[in-house]
Amino acid sequence: MVPIEKSASEAEIEGISEPYALASLELHPGRTEVKVGRGPGAVTFGGVRVPVVAGPCAVESWEQLGAVARAAKAAGAGALRGGAFKPRSSPYTFQGLGEEGLKLLARARELTGLPVVTEVMSPDAVRLVAEYADCLQIGARNMQNFELLRAAGKAAKPVLLKRALSGTIEELLMAAEYVLAAGNPEVILCERGIRTFERATRNTLDLSAIPVLRELTHLPVVVDPSHGTGKGSLVPAMALAAIAAGADGLLLEVHPDPARARSDGPQSLTPAGLEALVPRLSAVARAVGREV
Amino acid sequence: MVPIEKSASEAEIEGISEPYALASLELHPGRTEVKVGRGPGAVTFGGVRVPVVAGPCAVESWEQLGAVARAAKAAGAGALRGGAFKPRSSPYTFQGLGEEGLKLLARARELTGLPVVTEVMSPDAVRLVAEYADCLQIGARNMQNFELLRAAGKAAKPVLLKRALSGTIEELLMAAEYVLAAGNPEVILCERGIRTFERATRNTLDLSAIPVLRELTHLPVVVDPSHGTGKGSLVPAMALAAIAAGADGLLLEVHPDPARARSDGPQSLTPAGLEALVPRLSAVARAVGREV
Amino acid sequence: MVPIEKSASEAEIEGISEPYALASLELHPGRTEVKVGRGPGAVTFGGVRVPVVAGPCAVESWEQLGAVARAAKAAGAGALRGGAFKPRSSPYTFQGLGEEGLKLLARARELTGLPVVTEVMSPDAVRLVAEYADCLQIGARNMQNFELLRAAGKAAKPVLLKRALSGTIEELLMAAEYVLAAGNPEVILCERGIRTFERATRNTLDLSAIPVLRELTHLPVVVDPSHGTGKGSLVPAMALAAIAAGADGLLLEVHPDPARARSDGPQSLTPAGLEALVPRLSAVARAVGREV
Amino acid sequence: MVPIEKSASEAEIEGISEPYALASLELHPGRTEVKVGRGPGAVTFGGVRVPVVAGPCAVESWEQLGAVARAAKAAGAGALRGGAFKPRSSPYTFQGLGEEGLKLLARARELTGLPVVTEVMSPDAVRLVAEYADCLQIGARNMQNFELLRAAGKAAKPVLLKRALSGTIEELLMAAEYVLAAGNPEVILCERGIRTFERATRNTLDLSAIPVLRELTHLPVVVDPSHGTGKGSLVPAMALAAIAAGADGLLLEVHPDPARARSDGPQSLTPAGLEALVPRLSAVARAVGREV
Repeated sequence: MVPIEKSASEAEIEGISEPYALASLELHPGRTEVKVGRGPGAVTFGGVRVPVVAGPCAVESWEQLGAVARAAKAAGAGALRGGAFKPRSSPYTFQGLGEEGLKLLARARELTGLPVVTEVMSPDAVRLVAEYADCLQIGARNMQNFELLRAAGKAAKPVLLKRALSGTIEELLMAAEYVLAAGNPEVILCERGIRTFERATRNTLDLSAIPVLRELTHLPVVVDPSHGTGKGSLVPAMALAAIAAGADGLLLEVHPDPARARSDGPQSLTPAGLEALVPRLSAVARAVGREV
Repeated sequence: MVPIEKSASEAEIEGISEPYALASLELHPGRTEVKVGRGPGAVTFGGVRVPVVAGPCAVESWEQLGAVARAAKAAGAGALRGGAFKPRSSPYTFQGLGEEGLKLLARARELTGLPVVTEVMSPDAVRLVAEYADCLQIGARNMQNFELLRAAGKAAKPVLLKRALSGTIEELLMAAEYVLAAGNPEVILCERGIRTFERATRNTLDLSAIPVLRELTHLPVVVDPSHGTGKGSLVPAMALAAIAAGADGLLLEVHPDPARARSDGPQSLTPAGLEALVPRLSAVARAVGREV
Repeated sequence: MVPIEKSASEAEIEGISEPYALASLELHPGRTEVKVGRGPGAVTFGGVRVPVVAGPCAVESWEQLGAVARAAKAAGAGALRGGAFKPRSSPYTFQGLGEEGLKLLARARELTGLPVVTEVMSPDAVRLVAEYADCLQIGARNMQNFELLRAAGKAAKPVLLKRALSGTIEELLMAAEYVLAAGNPEVILCERGIRTFERATRNTLDLSAIPVLRELTHLPVVVDPSHGTGKGSLVPAMALAAIAAGADGLLLEVHPDPARARSDGPQSLTPAGLEALVPRLSAVARAVGREV
Repeated sequence: MVPIEKSASEAEIEGISEPYALASLELHPGRTEVKVGRGPGAVTFGGVRVPVVAGPCAVESWEQLGAVARAAKAAGAGALRGGAFKPRSSPYTFQGLGEEGLKLLARARELTGLPVVTEVMSPDAVRLVAEYADCLQIGARNMQNFELLRAAGKAAKPVLLKRALSGTIEELLMAAEYVLAAGNPEVILCERGIRTFERATRNTLDLSAIPVLRELTHLPVVVDPSHGTGKGSLVPAMALAAIAAGADGLLLEVHPDPARARSDGPQSLTPAGLEALVPRLSAVARAVGREV
């Protein structure tokens, strides 16, 4: 028989019984609930409710963000997402508004009461982003940026950790373990599509990660069908499927004018699309004993 | 910019506007309903109902098949599946009971009234299998066995065509086109997992194929979460998700004693597991305007 | 730790110590030499020499095939390749000349003395193709077409078996085992690129398959850099690399007018390109103790 | 036809004619030579010579490093590699000796004259690592750690940038562009294996990246067959193939006692293995007009 090579992670953990001891369901039975935000607007991931986190890929202006935030609130979203620091493949594309973007997010929170989830890209920036945000997002490209994971592990805000494009589920758990081991117990895992040969979608959204993670960890699991498919018209079906599969939350990109978005327009819903989707999500959530 | 090489199919279809003209939704608006079986037990794919096709991976004996067939009927399944001719990676493993297996399937149909779906592996065998079966399954490994597709295209029974482990959605449609172009308009497409780097599951079930196919073709689309995950404990979540995403049917492996199955035991449900799952499937189906 | 699911093949071979007993190097130490053709033009795979098998993707006409055959002979190729029966993703593209193509191949053999390698796509056609060809090629899409493998195992001609686009090396060996177990000991394995996320090449040519197979089997291993890259300009570098890695032969697509080829033009060399490449291949072959 | 979704990078670069203008061969014809080290021991990548960079995965002790450094020098290697800061999937495995490891590398350079290549994992550490190292390695997991790329772009040392496990060739070039655009013109690209479904090797070494990059960029390209295969017995064949395909250098893991290595032992050569390999590399290099 062909000898099967161990993966990087396996080779490393040889002889170590628990490479993600803190994240392990076996060692920590039950479900962890992670609360994002404070006061009446706070939202919990990992309980009966399945919050929708809606917002633009990148914060572009107050006109754009304010419009989306109001629409998200009206549609029943539980939190607002939007990137101020944007990881972009090319150095010559829009890199985000930086701190100005963070300020706009804080203003949108004041306006709507929705807590804010936004990405942090380097250890140095953790402090700054944590001042404004209610939840620190670590993007797919940084899933194994271990210095960033450690820095986020010292922050006093929850962390939403996205699976890498080629990250195994086991590696996602070990990445979460870096955050947990550094002292931050509030980690939300996020499936957002993996890279495969298929070209009809931008990535292949691996919904089976939800039940696999459910068997292995007590941490909540959310799904991002916008990045997962790369195509707005596919988002509703995959959002419904994610809830049916047991997701603890959804990240949905919403833009008032997707055709003019400075990044990821094609995968965004319009505010009207979000409004139409939420009742359908609620119906499926109820069918599986949850609520949106 | 890196020039992107055309895929095989693209290179071939250059200048041809419709590589899957007969399967195309654009050219044939509406939804095709494919009826499997005759008389009162017939079941339709592509309508409001979402039939469950349940049964063992391989037909092993009347004891096994009869037990599963009765359980499938009792649980509310709409059709019976089971392999008499089994494609196996190694020549030294159980290859199926052959015609004897077909006879057992026919006996199970008599017992329960459930129509029978079973695999055919070579052009020569199409006539024989079509004598016994209500629907001819073409397996993932044979998705681009063009002689087999042509032969199935001349049969008078519907064809259930599974996506190859590395088959793109476009290639699946072109494979279906071989069957349609040979004269058989009754094709059901099946997503059953693609091959990726992830090792926590046997394959990666690509549920986004459902909404992608919905945009491109009028043919019904079913999902096989048993092969798609390779693990019985993950099947319920993925079956629920498939229905939420819009699947027109499910293939579920059921075995009375998974631990002793001669093939694919670990991914099988027990009869009790099937019985517990169906009401949950019904609830999600109703939430998206369908019925199981 | 995440439990790693067994692959299909592993699940099947549980408890079976040798899923490819006849192909196994451990059980059959040494190297198998496979002779293709008869008389003075015969060529051997698996010895010191590294034959080049050159020719068009598809046989289109005598003008085309004759020109390529003469050029291949002049450049030092050891055998001629060309498809008479073509597996095509779409039913509406050129499917090959069929038996007429086989006759042209035989005529080219008479003209040049080069033995002929050509594809067979169905069990029924094995007899016909074996009448004309010196070596039966089984294409990537048919690597697990088990009925075809069995039929080829009963033919009296060597078999060149290509790895599937998503075929593991272990599965390739088990597919070869079907041919060997059916009674045909003359099997040549072929690496021709696997399907990955990378889009700058048509497939990803996995040259590491050469040393892996060298450790596992006594069968010769050839490489097809034309399909492996899909781009003529990349073929020379990968052909050189294949020889350096230990390949026992090369399949190279050559067309007198790649821009007008009826299939796979972009990946073909011109006759002049082949002529320029062979001395470079020879130099690398000598550096690793082989000859072209 | 199935509409093909643009990749992230494509979506971003829409309308931008040159997403990697500084790295582009079209805009900057010729070949860039990158010199690593100073004085008589300096070594150049991108010229006629093909330097071998040898050393342990992780610096463990002076005993280990000194032994490897002497062996590397004796075998004809041009530079020394070794990790002081180690990116590890699990937080509970050996993370490297840190600055102590850098000091040992500097001591090994004094001993042998070999310049030192070592990894840097965070923007903060660039200054420290650049004090000791002759070349800063950015690992596969950090290929799109844009803050790190920018920081390395401000360093006065060359950068060796590894392709991500799921990084396309186009993304590798855009990642290099971050370094170049920040002011550092000395970038060496490294192919080290991508993640695919194949399990007989740890990764799939994509040697076609060499000729693809050769067509697109003037930057030198090196190959790491140790990580690329994950198995020491496969390294010689793939190292030979890399040179035949046109690589400008090799990274080879060498450990005096692979079975006891604290990381990646199974893929390491022994000093004797390295010594035996170099003359074979030289022979192939000469066959393609290069020297080792």
